Amino acid sequence: MNTTRGIPERELMHRHFEYELDGLKSNIIKIASLAEEAIARSIRSLLEQKKEVAYEVIEFDKQIDAYEIVIDNHVVDILALQQPVAVDLRFILAASKINNDLERIGDHAVNIAESALVLANAPHIKPLVDIPIMADTTKHMLRDAIDAFIHRDAQKARLVLEKDDTIDNLNKKIVGDLVALMRKEPSTIDQALDLIRVSRNLERVADLTTNIAEQVIFMAEARVVKHHLNELPEK
Amino acid sequence: MNTTRGIPERELMHRHFEYELDGLKSNIIKIASLAEEAIARSIRSLLEQKKEVAYEVIEFDKQIDAYEIVIDNHVVDILALQQPVAVDLRFILAASKINNDLERIGDHAVNIAESALVLANAPHIKPLVDIPIMADTTKHMLRDAIDAFIHRDAQKARLVLEKDDTIDNLNKKIVGDLVALMRKEPSTIDQALDLIRVSRNLERVADLTTNIAEQVIFMAEARVVKHHLNELPEK
Repeated sequence: MNTTRGIPERELMHRHFEYELDGLKSNIIKIASLAEEAIARSIRSLLEQKKEVAYEVIEFDKQIDAYEIVIDNHVVDILALQQPVAVDLRFILAASKINNDLERIGDHAVNIAESALVLANAPHIKPLVDIPIMADTTKHMLRDAIDAFIHRDAQKARLVLEKDDTIDNLNKKIVGDLVALMRKEPSTIDQALDLIRVSRNLERVADLTTNIAEQVIFMAEARVVKHHLNELPEK
Repeated sequence: MNTTRGIPERELMHRHFEYELDGLKSNIIKIASLAEEAIARSIRSLLEQKKEVAYEVIEFDKQIDAYEIVIDNHVVDILALQQPVAVDLRFILAASKINNDLERIGDHAVNIAESALVLANAPHIKPLVDIPIMADTTKHMLRDAIDAFIHRDAQKARLVLEKDDTIDNLNKKIVGDLVALMRKEPSTIDQALDLIRVSRNLERVADLTTNIAEQVIFMAEARVVKHHLNELPEK
């Protein structure tokens, strides 16, 4: 048996693989926290009408973009050098897709910050009550989805999917209220459109978060829930 | 040397791998043509105010979803059984991400069809001139991006990225015109919002298409253009 300092070679390779996987998990946690932070800041810049915070979000996105590339290269290296199979292969492929989803969440934070910049030029046309609720719900969905990924917890991921209806309903309510306001007060049209844009961007963030949850279930159960949520057996 | 019917084993394995890669390419071409068809039909349902065509698009999306899953599983199988490295590994990872982007394009066709259903209830508030131009430009971008992928042609992919500005400008013009109309005629607000939704969905399709082009460049040149387009040397 080949050994290095008394440790069998196969065991060494396995330890090295575990080390690489842990590194990949840490990187995903890191980019997820950057994406979460970007959304939180973009909403703060909107609510508090702080342009400097909005500019920070736009600048901050470069860090997220850079992180995505680091993780993409890490994925290629692990696949090429370790040639994992079965569950590990699915975990790494899921990490690759989740990485992409998280980078896109950063892009939506930039879109929200851009609307916040415009909306900081005048008092808000209405008190913003539902948008912070939507942002908060999205944040918890994202945390749960990432936690489900790290712990390969399909049940927790499934709970994330269920929350997506809450988000869709909040978005409909926000858009409906704003359309009513535009109709009553056509002078509010421009600002109302930017608020609708914010709401739709949050809805897209929640969509991307459900994508992440779907990846976790796909990976953990090695079957496809995506597009088949209603056909799943009860837990 | 191990041989089977006179063909060396290594050569047999290589042929099998080429066969699998060709299958993956065919699958990507197939799902891309389904996505392109979905967008074309959704725009036709809007322009001709044909509800039955809009319903077809919504129904048709199930085929695209099913195809995405077939391709996802194909990617896992190739990676697990063939353990490719270097350029082939990057090609397969690119296929996996492009697959995901194409499925999302199908989702945007559904969004457009949903707006078309609402907009079929009354005559259009204005002649739709820019939306078909935008749809047509997007279609050509998508075809070129897929062609660039199949032929690993980074230069062609780069041309796709350049067209994204045209799309952004068309979207701005469409939204601007509709906002002006809403302000002049508040009774058009509902329909104008649905037309803005169509335009933004087409913009997202073009974004996803540029993602595909970026994957091709990443794969073909094994370096990252994503987020760094301006830093690239001139061809």
